[in-house]
Amino acid sequence: MRVLILGGDGYLGWPTSMNFAANGHEVLTVDNYMRRHIAMDTDSMPLFDNPLLDQRAAIFKKETGHDINVRIGDLADFRFVESVFSEFKPDCIIHYAEQPSAPYSMRGFEEAKKTFDNNLGATFNIIWGMLNHCPDAHMVKLGTMGEYGTPNIDIEEGYLEVEHKGRKDKFLFPRQAGSLYHTTKVLDTDLLYFYCRVYGLRVTDLMQGPVYGVVTDEATDNPELWPNFHYDDQFGTLINRFLVQAVAGVPLTVYGKGGQTRGYLDVRDTLQCVMLAANNPAGKGELKIYNQFVEQFSVNQIADKVVKAGKELGLDVAVNPIPNPRKEMEEHYYNAQHSGLLELGLKPHYLTDEEMINLLKTVISGKDRIVERRIMPRVVWNKK
Amino acid sequence: MRVLILGGDGYLGWPTSMNFAANGHEVLTVDNYMRRHIAMDTDSMPLFDNPLLDQRAAIFKKETGHDINVRIGDLADFRFVESVFSEFKPDCIIHYAEQPSAPYSMRGFEEAKKTFDNNLGATFNIIWGMLNHCPDAHMVKLGTMGEYGTPNIDIEEGYLEVEHKGRKDKFLFPRQAGSLYHTTKVLDTDLLYFYCRVYGLRVTDLMQGPVYGVVTDEATDNPELWPNFHYDDQFGTLINRFLVQAVAGVPLTVYGKGGQTRGYLDVRDTLQCVMLAANNPAGKGELKIYNQFVEQFSVNQIADKVVKAGKELGLDVAVNPIPNPRKEMEEHYYNAQHSGLLELGLKPHYLTDEEMINLLKTVISGKDRIVERRIMPRVVWNKK
Repeated sequence: MRVLILGGDGYLGWPTSMNFAANGHEVLTVDNYMRRHIAMDTDSMPLFDNPLLDQRAAIFKKETGHDINVRIGDLADFRFVESVFSEFKPDCIIHYAEQPSAPYSMRGFEEAKKTFDNNLGATFNIIWGMLNHCPDAHMVKLGTMGEYGTPNIDIEEGYLEVEHKGRKDKFLFPRQAGSLYHTTKVLDTDLLYFYCRVYGLRVTDLMQGPVYGVVTDEATDNPELWPNFHYDDQFGTLINRFLVQAVAGVPLTVYGKGGQTRGYLDVRDTLQCVMLAANNPAGKGELKIYNQFVEQFSVNQIADKVVKAGKELGLDVAVNPIPNPRKEMEEHYYNAQHSGLLELGLKPHYLTDEEMINLLKTVISGKDRIVERRIMPRVVWNKK
Repeated sequence: MRVLILGGDGYLGWPTSMNFAANGHEVLTVDNYMRRHIAMDTDSMPLFDNPLLDQRAAIFKKETGHDINVRIGDLADFRFVESVFSEFKPDCIIHYAEQPSAPYSMRGFEEAKKTFDNNLGATFNIIWGMLNHCPDAHMVKLGTMGEYGTPNIDIEEGYLEVEHKGRKDKFLFPRQAGSLYHTTKVLDTDLLYFYCRVYGLRVTDLMQGPVYGVVTDEATDNPELWPNFHYDDQFGTLINRFLVQAVAGVPLTVYGKGGQTRGYLDVRDTLQCVMLAANNPAGKGELKIYNQFVEQFSVNQIADKVVKAGKELGLDVAVNPIPNPRKEMEEHYYNAQHSGLLELGLKPHYLTDEEMINLLKTVISGKDRIVERRIMPRVVWNKK
């Protein structure tokens, strides 16, 4: 397949690029380095150094013989999108090209506007790149479980059958996100749903939970090929942040009561899921939706796991609940379906004690690089 | 009240401006004339001439003694929004400032992008104008019944209580629009819902059906104070288009089977509804939603009414079903609740035979100005 990976410099975009190339696909990976710029501007650099895309592609080529083609540019600029799509004519588009930090999107007007314009602008332009140059191609879009919020009913996979006053219909599962970042993904879903129904686009929208981990099959030993691993309050996902706090000797920053429950997955399972989605494309006019996670945990359960694994490695990990900087329910019902990707063949990696110890060991290898001032939350939801 | 009317040059924005001014409110009305530009570019000028806003405000002042203040500028430009909100500090914002044509939004990429950028950009900026300068003000936003599409269950007023696997929750009523224009309003609703829940904004979102009519209480005799009255395929709403076709001797252009059912209302009832919404503001953090229409009709029912009223006036009105340029169901279930505004005190104008005859008489007064080439549909949904 000709696979166009948008947002290919990201935590998931880069390992996805390696994974598709290693599996024999023709890969073009695109990024505008927005996340790198924001990370530099906000003192949120990742734990390990990540060479720029051209360098990483060259290292990967040397190690494996596989090509990853690179283009740098802004997908919110339609001229760039036209140039990429008219030249590459992809069969499959993996769309990660969004400002990915919820806290950043909540800092203030400028950050909100950048997130809104980039995420919606990129999605809109990518849709039209497809309509103009490859209307039968398949888009695999990264959404988020956060689109659903924390409803008081079971979360189904994307859609909900409703019986109301004796009549029935099937709708998109209701969405009610808790940050502007997550809300841009709700709007993406609505927009893609329209372009599927009315213009016959093929899209698979993956509602993904928080991802953890560093090492993937294509980059076990060479940290230069690892994805960016953030532990700051903006780009760091929960488990990754806790791992670094444990290693740094900083008490784990549980927000509020810690009953917040989400569905988590290993970065290696993201790669499997995206590959499965790409190999099982949506039909013409279809918006397929999968819930992409492996296990549900509350924040407190994860903190306990980190404490336990730390003990095995001689780390004395403390837990320190702090006032919640976010506006979210800290105790709530949560039960999300996630059978679709398992049925396609996903072989999950579970967050076992052994796996947690391996993760801690990886972080310990970068212990000297931890900058403690990046750890505590710096953005409060709705300071206004 | 200090009332800021955004999109004040429009079919509804202008009579709303007069209505609030006549009721003793301090009115600032804002527009960028986007609709006038598009109408000129696409040969879609309205039936009667409409002076520019400053001239109309001067005529209105002379006739009634009431002031309507005017500012011309682009709400998708945040500097302009900052300047308007910081100077005027409204108590109530009536937000009509959107590209209002569904067919225009479906012409192609440029038109889609203009609609998307304007409608979402304006809504985003207006939200932040409120957060920065009047966080306790109330926004009355014009949505559309088209956000809901034509579901197979009863359409409730904005929200739906769902019982699922023995548990319950209440969500935004599912939305599935049939044009990009209508989809931008779905996205607006999602965005406003987020900013209400997380930033405590007060918003009333009015899901309005197609409006008909010309004359309002503030402008009975002077056509210079009438709102723009479009009869073209882009900006003309169904009943207004049929009225002009009947007067021009062009067979009524029923799209397809004509079973498409919607909820309609008189332009005078739009003014009542918006005033009722403004006088009954949403609470802090509340997104109030009303379904704003008076009567449900199918296209065929409206065609029959026009034929009947035409006969009374000696017009021999023919009906000519044509291939549907839109992608929509032509026969479907439709039953939408609309009790909220009635409970607030709406006194509806119904589409009686007498009313239809009055409407035809108004159009007959402009008969010589009808340009027939504007009548037939020029935009086909998804030509791709």
